[in-house]
Amino acid sequence: MRIAVDGMGGDKGPAILVTGAVDALHQDPELTVLLVGQEDVLRRELVQHKYDPRRLQVHHAEEEIHMEDSPSVVVRQKKKSSLHVANQLVKTGEAEAVFTAGNTGAAMAVSLLTLGRIPGIIRPALLVDFPSNAPQGSTSLIDVGANVDCKPNMLAQFAIMGELWQRQMYSVAEPRVGLLSLGEEDSKGNDLIHETRELLKSLKLNFIGNVEGQDIVNGRAEVVVCDGFVGNALLKFGSGIARMFIEFLKRDMLHSGWMARWTTGIMLPILRRFYRKLDYQEVGSAPMLGINGVSTIGHGKSSAKAIKNALLQAAKFRHQDINHKIEAALRRQGVVEG
Amino acid sequence: MRIAVDGMGGDKGPAILVTGAVDALHQDPELTVLLVGQEDVLRRELVQHKYDPRRLQVHHAEEEIHMEDSPSVVVRQKKKSSLHVANQLVKTGEAEAVFTAGNTGAAMAVSLLTLGRIPGIIRPALLVDFPSNAPQGSTSLIDVGANVDCKPNMLAQFAIMGELWQRQMYSVAEPRVGLLSLGEEDSKGNDLIHETRELLKSLKLNFIGNVEGQDIVNGRAEVVVCDGFVGNALLKFGSGIARMFIEFLKRDMLHSGWMARWTTGIMLPILRRFYRKLDYQEVGSAPMLGINGVSTIGHGKSSAKAIKNALLQAAKFRHQDINHKIEAALRRQGVVEG
Repeated sequence: MRIAVDGMGGDKGPAILVTGAVDALHQDPELTVLLVGQEDVLRRELVQHKYDPRRLQVHHAEEEIHMEDSPSVVVRQKKKSSLHVANQLVKTGEAEAVFTAGNTGAAMAVSLLTLGRIPGIIRPALLVDFPSNAPQGSTSLIDVGANVDCKPNMLAQFAIMGELWQRQMYSVAEPRVGLLSLGEEDSKGNDLIHETRELLKSLKLNFIGNVEGQDIVNGRAEVVVCDGFVGNALLKFGSGIARMFIEFLKRDMLHSGWMARWTTGIMLPILRRFYRKLDYQEVGSAPMLGINGVSTIGHGKSSAKAIKNALLQAAKFRHQDINHKIEAALRRQGVVEG
Repeated sequence: MRIAVDGMGGDKGPAILVTGAVDALHQDPELTVLLVGQEDVLRRELVQHKYDPRRLQVHHAEEEIHMEDSPSVVVRQKKKSSLHVANQLVKTGEAEAVFTAGNTGAAMAVSLLTLGRIPGIIRPALLVDFPSNAPQGSTSLIDVGANVDCKPNMLAQFAIMGELWQRQMYSVAEPRVGLLSLGEEDSKGNDLIHETRELLKSLKLNFIGNVEGQDIVNGRAEVVVCDGFVGNALLKFGSGIARMFIEFLKRDMLHSGWMARWTTGIMLPILRRFYRKLDYQEVGSAPMLGINGVSTIGHGKSSAKAIKNALLQAAKFRHQDINHKIEAALRRQGVVEG
């Protein structure tokens, strides 16, 4: 499994990316990493690590993309960027998957332009796995930001893609798919929700109808479908709550008795574990489903561990051949573009 | 200050409502409660409490509304319900505010029908105060579910109402108002967001532009404006995360060493405090802003303490004369219906 890694993307610089990539190689003996970016910069990081040079190759790319670059400018003007070159490696077949922790909008635009869409897909979508009380421990929220205005057949495709993701990545036999709305009753929602619900009912899915915000984490569903505007707000709100929670506890403990303060040292690792579960900086990565190739995005503030997890996840995504399954499912279910 | 309380609304029955009302009377000597509902039921609860009967009167209402009743049916067919009678008391001037912990949709429909809108208001909206890192400790999210399809001038009115809420309830001099979107940059958003942003820029508000999900809690803004579909999802997601968090900690502690388990007893009160802050069951109440009268809604699972807080909040809402200030602000800013 050969994964192209954008070695220049992310807020923390190449060191974290290189560390994460080397760690992934240690954990998965089948993996090969093609590290893309400014060769001298990357080599400088690599000398600090032990790795098999046959399994970690550097591909030079002159330009890099910054977090503030607009996707349209990136697509037109930065064709020699590490992000472009990494996607190009998938296009030519030199790599089987691409990962970046850089600018999300640019990543989506470049993958869409370079790799195109799975036949039949109207618009790709970004999926994030939230920790939840579902039996296998996660619920997929799709879309979390690729599409700000959705149509019913787009949401139906998100449902099909999310369902396959849960099946293939977590071996869930009949993933329960819910449509995010304001209440469980069929009467709750706006026009988009009502039309989408009817469409979803007509498909071969374990569709459980409307779900609400709390159902993303309480285990009622394995897949929650929403438009990218709502999903993005939820994703970032969850991260904000997690951070606020840690701050609240620290503050509150300071104002508690000595006994409570004394327990801080014991509690903080548990709390941090929870925080990491919730915070999208630590989740690993979000697959861009619907792209005709395996392309996943990590948070700009990803830790080395998150990078490592992201690469292992991307390898599994490719290994499970999810894209061909999506293509077949869209055809079978008759929810295709046009 | 006379508040009409729907004595039959809520999942937990009248006992909690009566306890909360009596507690509010003890805390606020200016308060009088008009308890509305089936007289025999309410009297049976009241005999268990000590209170001044001149300050807590029972108004009989034959019917009651259930959580599953649809708002349209309630409005047409249950005109003798405790909810209707309680709103009617505000309409006739016998009460200055109305509170229910019952069916939210029905509460909005009945208040809108009975009390109407503040002159100039297009659509009322539901506001919830989230605990946040803002200096006074809360950020108002508006709308959290009254309107599933919004127009720019509706969102602009929500901004004006939320801003006045923060000014009057928490004495914030220049509340920072943000528009919820997918990124801070002006380019981020859908058509509704772009149009609304231009409108908000033209108003006399401390408008800080686009904000993101995390900004609801991180203290970047005192008011975050969104449509009711998104706001409702966020509200319920926050509650779901809070609940999941407590469960996670309990589970995690069981699998930790004895020392960590031992700290549970000390930590749980702190954790519950956080949970209550986040969980909308405990927040107290949400004002329905834009109704021509003071009408607030509590969660169906409200505790007696939440009921008490809700009544004190409703009294302050009325006392601060927020509705007249909203009417004046709408006129001054030129954002009125039509």
